[in-house]
Amino acid sequence: MVHSVLPNWLNSVHHDGSERYVSTPLPRLEEQVTLRLRAGADAPVRRVFLRTFPDGEQALTPMSRGEAGAPAAWWECRVRVNQPHFHYRFVLEADDGVWFYTAAGPTAHIPWDATDFCLLADYEPPGWLDTAIFYQIFPDRFHNGDPATNPRPEAYEFNGHRPRTYAWGAPPPAGALFPLVFYGGDLPGITAKLDYLQDLGVNALYLTPVFTAYSNHKYDVADYDHVDPHFGGDDALVALRRALDARAMRYILDVVPNHCGYWHPWFQAARADASVPEAEFFTFINHPDAYASWLGVWVLPKLNYRSAELRRRMYAGESSVFRRWLRPPFAADGWRVDVANMLGRQGETQIGQEVVQDIRRAVKETRPGAYLMGENFFDATASLQGDQWDGVMNYAGLATPLLAWLVGYEQGAHGLAETITSPVSWPTAALAATWQQHLAAIPWQIARQQFNVLNSHDTPRLRSRLQGNVALQRLAVVAQFTFPGVPCIYYGDEIGLVDTPELASRGCMVWDEAAWDQEMRAFYQALIRLRRESAVLQRGGFRILAVEADLLAYQREGEDGSFLVILQRSQMPRPAGGLPIAHGGFPDGAQFVEQFSGQTGRVVDGQLALPALPQGATLWHTSTVLM
Amino acid sequence: MVHSVLPNWLNSVHHDGSERYVSTPLPRLEEQVTLRLRAGADAPVRRVFLRTFPDGEQALTPMSRGEAGAPAAWWECRVRVNQPHFHYRFVLEADDGVWFYTAAGPTAHIPWDATDFCLLADYEPPGWLDTAIFYQIFPDRFHNGDPATNPRPEAYEFNGHRPRTYAWGAPPPAGALFPLVFYGGDLPGITAKLDYLQDLGVNALYLTPVFTAYSNHKYDVADYDHVDPHFGGDDALVALRRALDARAMRYILDVVPNHCGYWHPWFQAARADASVPEAEFFTFINHPDAYASWLGVWVLPKLNYRSAELRRRMYAGESSVFRRWLRPPFAADGWRVDVANMLGRQGETQIGQEVVQDIRRAVKETRPGAYLMGENFFDATASLQGDQWDGVMNYAGLATPLLAWLVGYEQGAHGLAETITSPVSWPTAALAATWQQHLAAIPWQIARQQFNVLNSHDTPRLRSRLQGNVALQRLAVVAQFTFPGVPCIYYGDEIGLVDTPELASRGCMVWDEAAWDQEMRAFYQALIRLRRESAVLQRGGFRILAVEADLLAYQREGEDGSFLVILQRSQMPRPAGGLPIAHGGFPDGAQFVEQFSGQTGRVVDGQLALPALPQGATLWHTSTVLM
Repeated sequence: MVHSVLPNWLNSVHHDGSERYVSTPLPRLEEQVTLRLRAGADAPVRRVFLRTFPDGEQALTPMSRGEAGAPAAWWECRVRVNQPHFHYRFVLEADDGVWFYTAAGPTAHIPWDATDFCLLADYEPPGWLDTAIFYQIFPDRFHNGDPATNPRPEAYEFNGHRPRTYAWGAPPPAGALFPLVFYGGDLPGITAKLDYLQDLGVNALYLTPVFTAYSNHKYDVADYDHVDPHFGGDDALVALRRALDARAMRYILDVVPNHCGYWHPWFQAARADASVPEAEFFTFINHPDAYASWLGVWVLPKLNYRSAELRRRMYAGESSVFRRWLRPPFAADGWRVDVANMLGRQGETQIGQEVVQDIRRAVKETRPGAYLMGENFFDATASLQGDQWDGVMNYAGLATPLLAWLVGYEQGAHGLAETITSPVSWPTAALAATWQQHLAAIPWQIARQQFNVLNSHDTPRLRSRLQGNVALQRLAVVAQFTFPGVPCIYYGDEIGLVDTPELASRGCMVWDEAAWDQEMRAFYQALIRLRRESAVLQRGGFRILAVEADLLAYQREGEDGSFLVILQRSQMPRPAGGLPIAHGGFPDGAQFVEQFSGQTGRVVDGQLALPALPQGATLWHTSTVLM
Repeated sequence: MVHSVLPNWLNSVHHDGSERYVSTPLPRLEEQVTLRLRAGADAPVRRVFLRTFPDGEQALTPMSRGEAGAPAAWWECRVRVNQPHFHYRFVLEADDGVWFYTAAGPTAHIPWDATDFCLLADYEPPGWLDTAIFYQIFPDRFHNGDPATNPRPEAYEFNGHRPRTYAWGAPPPAGALFPLVFYGGDLPGITAKLDYLQDLGVNALYLTPVFTAYSNHKYDVADYDHVDPHFGGDDALVALRRALDARAMRYILDVVPNHCGYWHPWFQAARADASVPEAEFFTFINHPDAYASWLGVWVLPKLNYRSAELRRRMYAGESSVFRRWLRPPFAADGWRVDVANMLGRQGETQIGQEVVQDIRRAVKETRPGAYLMGENFFDATASLQGDQWDGVMNYAGLATPLLAWLVGYEQGAHGLAETITSPVSWPTAALAATWQQHLAAIPWQIARQQFNVLNSHDTPRLRSRLQGNVALQRLAVVAQFTFPGVPCIYYGDEIGLVDTPELASRGCMVWDEAAWDQEMRAFYQALIRLRRESAVLQRGGFRILAVEADLLAYQREGEDGSFLVILQRSQMPRPAGGLPIAHGGFPDGAQFVEQFSGQTGRVVDGQLALPALPQGATLWHTSTVLM
């Protein structure tokens, strides 16, 4: 209903949290920083003001314009960062109106504070994330390093079923209880395959849960204090840590604080006797059989964070779960926190924010450089303001909209019989809007720490979701490696693994090289290398430059050059022709080189001359520094 | 940059928090409510889902469609309100895609949670606001009821100046210190004029501060525990309360918890001795002369809410400021809280949310029906989620955009030499976007409690801001009285008062009826009556129906009819012709009556046939109930 009333010249205005625009991306409280805004040289701007909000009151600081005659007008001012969450926007007084500019883009109307740009004062980031490339491993399915620890039927019984270890890669028999289907993968198996991972180029691991539990996925924790013996026990984790250290690699663990497993001693004690201290860890509607659980799944009783003793054991106390695994000899480099979105939320009790803030304090106190990352499929922006998560699994801000654009929106939910399915793929504008709004709602520093997955053990594999389309897989992976945030590859995607009917996306890693998609693996290797070597892809600015029916183009801008990423989804090639990019600051004559093909292109009359673009991504680099 | 990709039929989709769409606007926690969505009968919708977010996890509830053949398709479902802040949206699976619908309107992309619709569970509203029409009084300038209490020079000295009471309405001499210019208005004066106010039709008063202070405005509080003797002292307030009771009228007081006056005994004690308990109420950078103050104004030292003792005295303790005036014999019906936006915010200390939540608890505990309303010129939506303010002075969500649309955007700020001024008035789309985004970011119940001012003692008077344009004044007042929220008239606007060079918007009320704009006063009276008698204007749904270059039209929808409000800003009349309103649910044949002129109009082919519309507002009513 509301139509755009913005003049075209506003497209030339840009600011983001990167170093070209912010002198000190990680300021101390009270520090002076210089903020810069770029606009086209011919934009009819009279005055520009920085709008800050010290202690809740609007302040407007006039900005000064750099030398005239330059290809772009740079406006700048210095300002004191007076509060921890220092948010700001720009107000442009122009010949044709007063316009507002936030991280969500320009508007004719006064924007919400929620999309203001934001600097975090006194924020200590896990700096190692800059160059990190993660690889997610589901240990039971990666590699069997020690067959002696394979789960056997005599190990335990679970509700009438017993664990069994099957031959590597063999589908389980019909009727096997999915959580008790094992393949014997373990931590020694991971340690044994570090050569492979290092050759691929990744330098950080995310392991799904390794603590003692009955299932293969181990989200039904039975003991937060020990590594499952079937994965090799605590010693195997220490050995993995040492082996990673020798290669300067990192790893993070997966913790499940929202619920525990039915067989956890806390829950068993609470069931047996409502007067034990652990009883308050749970919410019994009718003791002992009716109790709150994760989405009604009886094996996963919900933990109740009104209990101070639970908080002590889980994160506050010195020997709490969150602290102990960050300390030597395990020395994990951080946590992936399961079901982060539901933590501390239970009907009238909605203390999730407080619980996560406390977890953060405990984690950072114990290991200052630790990465604290949460699982969240939805809008996590309220918990991504610097005082809670360092980042979340970025389904909502990256993967979900990208996949909806490539192959259509799909949404299931617990309790919903049929998936909601779009008969058409998303319009490109919807992809652009989702990306931009998610970036706009969080500080730039946090955006750089988002955990950029395209898929995981909880979703279809990338290639399966893309219906086997290899060009689209490459496109998606290019987006993943060139988007702000930290990429994470799900094990096996690099060799072309697809879902299986029996194991879905949790199939066994294939170690027979003859069965690998070698071309895809080489493509991942090349992208990983590029990303690890490129400061621009790690820390450069981001802006969306072009939205066409089947094409999205964006820019990463750095101190010594820029990348132009072009995603083209259609099976019909985009005919050779120009792409307008002058508003991105690229001057006529700027030379681009495509990173995979070596093709070159040049800016003429504000447009980059492009060859025909087949389905897929192209990645254009220019060493021209935007002025 | 991002273009709209929405199909037209989405304009026919509507939901809001009003009774036609929500069975129980004020549910208890765990209560079942029925939610309804309306769409055009021919919208190509296959399935509709209600998307809720219990405990942080997405849940999708299928909605069922009402009988076919109706003029509109009504989809509905029942759902349990499981948490205090129960937010929801709709997902529409249609032939042309999957679409999302929140309070911000339809989108092709997944929206933020921030614009979800929202029900507050177990929320206790000040129900009397439904029918309240406020009138703001600046007591020194309203009426002098007792000349014996006029401030005289011998009363006190302030920084070398002395107070003086001038003849009613006479401009003060050049060089007079503005805050010490008095006219002798007082509480007995207000009590004496209740006939006037009742005749006007208002039934609630908002008094700017009445507690003892040196200035005429009394924001420099010297004693939170007594009414200024120059206003008649405590007894005069008790007498006013009794007189209001006799007329079933309400009143709210103005409290200044962000800072106190330099001469307040707390500050004087703290200056004299850094070891007294009151010293921690302030922030001394260098005792005693350098201290934090409101925007650097030395007479207003900032109060420091890290101090538990200050919190006790201000709101937590039994005899605290916030509590005592709500109790008999003063029995104020609520508070307007000065500088609410800065309260508890001070550099690294940002505890505003916690302080306001605690104030709310104290206020509601003391007087459950009290109205707790904050001053805020900016984006207050984060503090309008049900746990902090009942409402704020709605500059940002109503008045600022409306005035920018009528006469152009203007923004000054402390420390800014020149005002930022737009050379053109706002596009209508900017007005619509601001209104809609502010409504979308807060629960419907809170929107209904917003304090809808167009101007106040802190801004130019309405008629002055509108450059004397009486048609635009009427337009603005119609918007004020037909917008969701509680209208408040600034004293004297109803008789046509304008700013004066010496007193700005704080001139003396004129009691000489010959000098009144009688026509304007009658217009206010008529609008007040309409609003007081109309459940639709008080509680009906709201949606924007039309955005033209110089016209904005919106709908208030109720159980027994609807209003259509048309604002036309141009001096050039809009030629007679149709206005498309079918998407609002109005069937062909629906009859409308304009409330001021008695003109009638009828819907033909989805358009309301309108006469030529001169500059101003028209207010069309239909008793057709939308199906």
